[in-house]
Formats: sequence, C-alpha cells, structure tokens
Amino acid sequence: MENQLSALHKFVETRNPEHLEALLADDVKFHSPFVWKPKEGKEITLATLTTVASVFEEFRYIREVIDGKNCVLEFEARIGVLTMRGVDIIEFNDEGKAVDFEVMIRPMNALEVVGTEMTKRLEAKGLV
Amino acid sequence: MENQLSALHKFVETRNPEHLEALLADDVKFHSPFVWKPKEGKEITLATLTTVASVFEEFRYIREVIDGKNCVLEFEARIGVLTMRGVDIIEFNDEGKAVDFEVMIRPMNALEVVGTEMTKRLEAKGLV
Repeated sequence: MENQLSALHKFVETRNPEHLEALLADDVKFHSPFVWKPKEGKEITLATLTTVASVFEEFRYIREVIDGKNCVLEFEARIGVLTMRGVDIIEFNDEGKAVDFEVMIRPMNALEVVGTEMTKRLEAKGLV
Repeated sequence: MENQLSALHKFVETRNPEHLEALLADDVKFHSPFVWKPKEGKEITLATLTTVASVFEEFRYIREVIDGKNCVLEFEARIGVLTMRGVDIIEFNDEGKAVDFEVMIRPMNALEVVGTEMTKRLEAKGLV
C-alpha cells in the first residue's frame, strides 16, 4: 500500500497525471459525489480525477485510514472562500491497482460549487 | 474497536439511542454533510444522529475500514426512490469513546433530499 499512497501523494504535489494513471486498473470504477451511476474505465476516471484536482485549491490529505485492500484518504481543500473536506475511498486489487475509487465531499455548499466548476471544465474538454 | 462497532451495529438494528449514547465522548464533535461548522457535545450529536437514522431507509453498512483509533464505516441506504452511499468517519479516544464523528453522503440529489427531510424533523424537535 505504501507505493500506492506515495504515487497518490506525488500526483497531489505535481499534478502530473502519470502518477495517478499508474495506480488505476484498466477496469476501475469511479463513483463521483454528484451522480449515482459509476463511470467505468481508466480513461474517464483519470480525466475526471485530474479535472477535479484542478478545481481544488490548497488540497492536502489530513487523515489516512488503511485496512487491507481498502484505504480511505480524507482531504481538506478550498474552493474560493469555501473550505471543504472529502474522502477518496479506494479499493486495490491483488496487483496493487485501484479497482474502485469513490469520492465524497462535505459540506453541501462547497460540493455545489465544485460541481458547477467541474461541469464547466469537463464540458470544455468535451467530456460531458 | 470490536465493542464499539458492535454497539453501532446494535443501534442500526434497534434504533435504540442508548447503544449510540454509550459510544460518544461528552465533548464529541459532529461534522455534518450539510454545514462546515461542527456541532459540539454528546447531546446535540446524539439528537442529530438519531434523527438522520430515522430518515434513512434500508440502511446497511457495506464496508468497514479500521486503522488504529480511526474507523470509516461506509453505508448504503435509500430515501424515497433514491439510493445513496455515505461514510461515518469516527475517531475514538483511549477510553474507546468517539471524540470526532463526521458524515459524508453521495450523490448530491440524495444528499439534498436528506437535508430537506432532516431540517423538517430537527425543526419539529426544536433543534434548528
């Protein structure tokens, strides 16, 4: 798990998507805070996560809860004047690749602003 | 941690607040999915958690990630026609009492419906 977390930390620091891509299984499922239906596959998951990373300001992990193949990384970040917390809930397979990646964010006002900004940026990339 | 989780499971099954009350430290902080500012103290935390429990239908825990004093319990539940997932992120002290209790919920449409219903029920109890 240490290598995986180190790759994730490198992605947060550098915003270089290669660190994130190396973590994801080809058939990873991504569960967004906005819609129930998961997005499936590495390409759309990577595009979504790199876009959301570009929306967060002062992103940092504040708590790591690791148990076997599951890890929950809690973060704190800012968007405009709003502070938020969220979790990356990640399940890894035996090869150490993420097969399930779920994100939740609180509080609701920050979630709404992140959603508006995400839609704008994903539309610009032709992804929604 | 086993006793704590067992008490929480009993609360989910029976909706008897005594199981939950026994888990909470007097100075527990509760972080809701709706507002940034935490609620402080056992009384308001208990009132909020028992109210939210009454809003969820078919509540069940689907994943437990436990690491030292922190545990993340992921749940799935229904409200009306909407399915949701959420997490209880709980930090325990050395005495095994919860000192920090944070809840996040996805997706956004379910979160909004839970919020509307929570406000209605907390208002009826004179708590907001």
